[in-house]
Order: sequence, then C-alpha cells, then structure tokens
Amino acid sequence: MSIRIGILGYGNLGRGVELAVRANEDMELAAVFTRRDPSALKIATPGVPVVRADEAEAWQDRIDVMILCGGSATDLPKQTPAFAKWFNVVDSFDTHAHIPDHFAAVDAAARAAGTLAAISVGWDPGLFSLARVYGSAVLPEGRDYTFWGRGVSQGHSDAIRRVPGVRDARQYTVPVEAALERVRSGENPDLTTRQKHTRECYVVLEDGADPVAVEQAIKTMPDYFADYDTTVHFISEAEMKEKHAGLAHGGFVIRSGRTGAAKEHAHIVEFRLKLDSNPEFTTGVLAAYARAVYRLAREGRTGCVTVLDIPPAYLSAKSGADLRASML
Amino acid sequence: MSIRIGILGYGNLGRGVELAVRANEDMELAAVFTRRDPSALKIATPGVPVVRADEAEAWQDRIDVMILCGGSATDLPKQTPAFAKWFNVVDSFDTHAHIPDHFAAVDAAARAAGTLAAISVGWDPGLFSLARVYGSAVLPEGRDYTFWGRGVSQGHSDAIRRVPGVRDARQYTVPVEAALERVRSGENPDLTTRQKHTRECYVVLEDGADPVAVEQAIKTMPDYFADYDTTVHFISEAEMKEKHAGLAHGGFVIRSGRTGAAKEHAHIVEFRLKLDSNPEFTTGVLAAYARAVYRLAREGRTGCVTVLDIPPAYLSAKSGADLRASML
Repeated sequence: MSIRIGILGYGNLGRGVELAVRANEDMELAAVFTRRDPSALKIATPGVPVVRADEAEAWQDRIDVMILCGGSATDLPKQTPAFAKWFNVVDSFDTHAHIPDHFAAVDAAARAAGTLAAISVGWDPGLFSLARVYGSAVLPEGRDYTFWGRGVSQGHSDAIRRVPGVRDARQYTVPVEAALERVRSGENPDLTTRQKHTRECYVVLEDGADPVAVEQAIKTMPDYFADYDTTVHFISEAEMKEKHAGLAHGGFVIRSGRTGAAKEHAHIVEFRLKLDSNPEFTTGVLAAYARAVYRLAREGRTGCVTVLDIPPAYLSAKSGADLRASML
Repeated sequence: MSIRIGILGYGNLGRGVELAVRANEDMELAAVFTRRDPSALKIATPGVPVVRADEAEAWQDRIDVMILCGGSATDLPKQTPAFAKWFNVVDSFDTHAHIPDHFAAVDAAARAAGTLAAISVGWDPGLFSLARVYGSAVLPEGRDYTFWGRGVSQGHSDAIRRVPGVRDARQYTVPVEAALERVRSGENPDLTTRQKHTRECYVVLEDGADPVAVEQAIKTMPDYFADYDTTVHFISEAEMKEKHAGLAHGGFVIRSGRTGAAKEHAHIVEFRLKLDSNPEFTTGVLAAYARAVYRLAREGRTGCVTVLDIPPAYLSAKSGADLRASML
C-alpha cells in the first residue's frame, strides 16, 4: 500500500513535494490543501483533489502524512500545531532561534492528539544539522564551520527591496574560497563574519533613482550588509528575469578535529551540497522524512521529533536487510 | 555516572579507543582485555587493569560497553557473537560481503542474552554508509559514487608482500581527480574500475631480487592490480620507514541526483573524509556509537544494530533540548 501524502500550500515547496512524491514509488499524492480558492488552483497531477485548507479535518482517514509547505515566519508556527491535531505532519520550519519554542508547541499538540510530527526538515536545518551532530560526536575535540552558498538569500533580497528607489533585487550569499581552504587545511581558524561570506547584490532601480544613494543604503544596512564585503550591480529588469530567476543554493559543513596523544593528527569531515533548485531538493528531504514519520507512527511513536531523532534506515524505501546487503 | 568502556585487543584500534575514551568526558576506561600475557602489556592509561581475554566474563557487572578491536578476517566473526553473550558490544567488522551473515550471528547471540550489539561501525562501513543511505533517500533518482583514498590499503600491501623477492611494501589507493570532477559536474558517468582509482606501490626488494620481474608480478596480479593503472616505486628500507609509516586515509561519497518535471535540476550531495590517522578516526566513531549503545540498551533495546538503525542524537553527549537549541 502506498503512503498517502497530503500537501498544505501550493507554492515552490508544495510543487516540489508533488514532484518528490512522484519520484518515490511507495508514495501517492492524496490531496492538495490550499487557503486560496481551490477552483482557481491548477496542480500538475491529474485527478488529485484540491481542497480548501479549512476543510482538511474531514480528510483525517485519507492522509497518512501531511507535508506543510508554508513559510516559517507566520504560517508554520500556527499551522504545524493546528494540523498535528489531525494528522502526522512534516514541516521545514527554518528559523533556528525559534526551534525550541516551535518544538514545544508542536510536541504538546501531537502528544495530546496521538500523532507524530517531524519539524525543521530540509537541509539547514536538516541535513546540515546531521552533519554537525555526526561530526562533533565522532571528533569531540574540534570545531564546526558552516558556509552557505553560492545561493539566493530571500531575506537579504527582501531587505534590499525595501530600500527607496529599488524596484527589484536578488542577493547571493557567497562563501569565501580562501576561508574554506583554511578550514580544510585543519588549522581551525577564527573567522569573522566578513571573512566567511561575501554578498553579491543585483538591483533593478526605479526610474530616476540615484544609484550612489541606493548602493550606500545597501552597503551600510546593519545586520544584513554592514559586516560583509558587499558588491552591488545595477541591471535591467530584463537581465534580472533572464539571469537571476534560478533557485540554486548549497553550502558546506566542515568538522575539523584532532586526535592522538599529542593531538598530532588532524581530521576533516566535510559535507557539501550543490543544488540547482533549493525548493526541489528540500522537498526531496521532506518526502524521505514523511516516509520515516509514517513508519514511526505505525510503531506507535507520538509527539515531536527532528532529523536528529530518526534512524537513517527509516528514510529509505529499502528494507533493513536490503540496506545492510547493498548500502552498508 | 560515566559510561564504563572495556577494550578487547590492544593494537592500533585498541590504542585509538583508549585515546577516544579520554576525549569523551562521559566515558571512562574500565579495563583492557588481551589474548597476550597481561603482565607484558603496558597501556597508556595509569591504573587501568589489563585482563586476560578468557577471564572477561567475570567483568560483566563492571563494563557497560565492550569495544571489540580485533580484525574482520578471523577475530570478529568469533569474538562479537561470543562477547555479546556477556556484554553490550561495538565492533568495526568491515568485510562488506559478509555483513549479512555476521549480523545474523550477532543478532541471535545478543537477543538470546538480552544485550545490544552495534556492528560495522567506522567510516566504511559506517559514516560512508550513512552518506549513501541519506543521499539516496533524499534524491531517489540518481547515482552513488564512492571513492577511497589517498590512503594505504592493508590488503593490497599484504598482497605485494607475498610476491617473491619483496621484503616490504606499502600500497596507496588514489582516487582519480578527473573522475571526481566528472561526478561532481552532475553528468552521472559510467566509470570503470580503472577510471576511478589508481594504485601506487612502494616496494623494498630482497637482496638480489629482480625488479623487472617483481613489477610485472604486481601489475598483472588479478583482482588486486590487473584492472588498475598501477605504478611501482622501488625504495630503500630506510625510506619506507621514514616516509610510509603514516596511516592517513579518506575518501568521498557522492550522490548525484536530478529533480524537476523534466529532470532539469542537478543536485550533488558530497561527503568527504580526510584523515591523518585512519585507526584513531575510526575509534572516535566507535566511541560515539558505544555511547549510543549504552543509551539504547538502557531503554531495553536488544539484538544487533548498525549505524543505519541508530538515531543521530544518541551519539552526542548533549541532551536533545541542547542539540535542538545549538546544533539543529
């Protein structure tokens, strides 16, 4: 029997989940739930119902796992605890500082309802968190380094768009190659914010806007840009559409540690992602964790979990014996 | 209370475990067990008893987890099931083809005794297996590539030493950089054995041996060298000791997959190890899994498990809440 997946929210993530379900033979898409008018929403999979989000409760017996595809700022803090009352759920909540609060709220809701919820599933938090935990556990004497990019930061792009005179903007976070090489060499450097990443901004100006003033406003913006080496490129709207519509991203997690009686041996554990489509890769991770949630829930597990709590074998469609014979 | 670790076998691995226990504040070394004469064995930690291996049973109440540091060829197939009768155990059994049989034997012994055993813990099998399983689960449409090296292969070094006229030998397995770059580019190439790795041999000849005949015998050896581009360097015994005593190793696991309605997006998940000391890094992994075995055993888990069955959080000395706040 297939794992019946529901999708809540049909943006980039929701569309990615739809593709990911197709790529996993043991899953089927049961329904898409939306806060928009369902009749106005055309989805890619023929024959799958599109349902109003506020009618989801009636689908409890027809969905094994609901994948929540809303945003972390305002959607998921409400949606995940609310939907955990009715469904096993998976979300990609990615505001690191608020994970403990989100975990507590979702755990309470899921325990009360007897459901299982996996939060903060994706690549950071998600696979990068796994790399950090495995790396620090096997090399207890060492340091962690996380680099992001090259990829678009939505938050930084939005910050530029709020500058007067800016019509559109795209901001790339770029890891500094020299810093990466220093980390890989095992020297365990102290790196400042400025030494780890640069910020590349592509900006379309409003007619008549002053490029000097806009560039100055961006480069001096506290938190977002002031602590970085930032470059600003002014481009046309056509160039923005042609060259900067992609959603590529990636990054590096490196654990650099030492062993030996005199700490004479250096070890580097490096985990790297290079992604053409950030949302499609993220939804591949969500689908694999939906499988794990389905299995753990059938074993009677309830409450909230993260990627750190889930045995890797639960993510795979293969049996334990098959994994041991072919992948161990 | 500390986790009380026992070590069986005091070679490179056993000495590495001793160092790893020191690096983990929640562990203590309870005893070292040896098949040699205990009075002849001097270990690095003062005050820790050295005990005859055949007297281990009497230590059941004083050891939480026994780490088995024997070899995969002849030691572990006997030792792991035997010691699982008395202890929770961890081993680094690394003969991939025989893992299913070893798992079955250890699982039967551990279930009967009510103990927990983790087998095949290390980096391959071990962390590389994790990389393969996570990578294939999140990118179901794709291919896996594993490259090893640059590092010494003990099996290949031993094979050279059996060639008449060879006094000593060291063989390095070297990944082909061009092949790695093709895999990282996302083209998903079919790679032959010869295209993935080269073999570098350093050989000390017996007096009067014929270098041409020895080189020919090595390069044409079936399975070990015939399918590879092999280079043979003749060196002095002094140079062997000076330059080739190191135990560095490493490698790469790469999952290259595609997503998108037309498979138009390529994704690369790369896990890399660069290790100055293969045995010391391996024992760091063994120590972390000893912690996980200790915790799972206290929860009542019995039988045989592998790295694929163990939730990552169990490896860390930090609590779940601390991990979520600081590492997720």
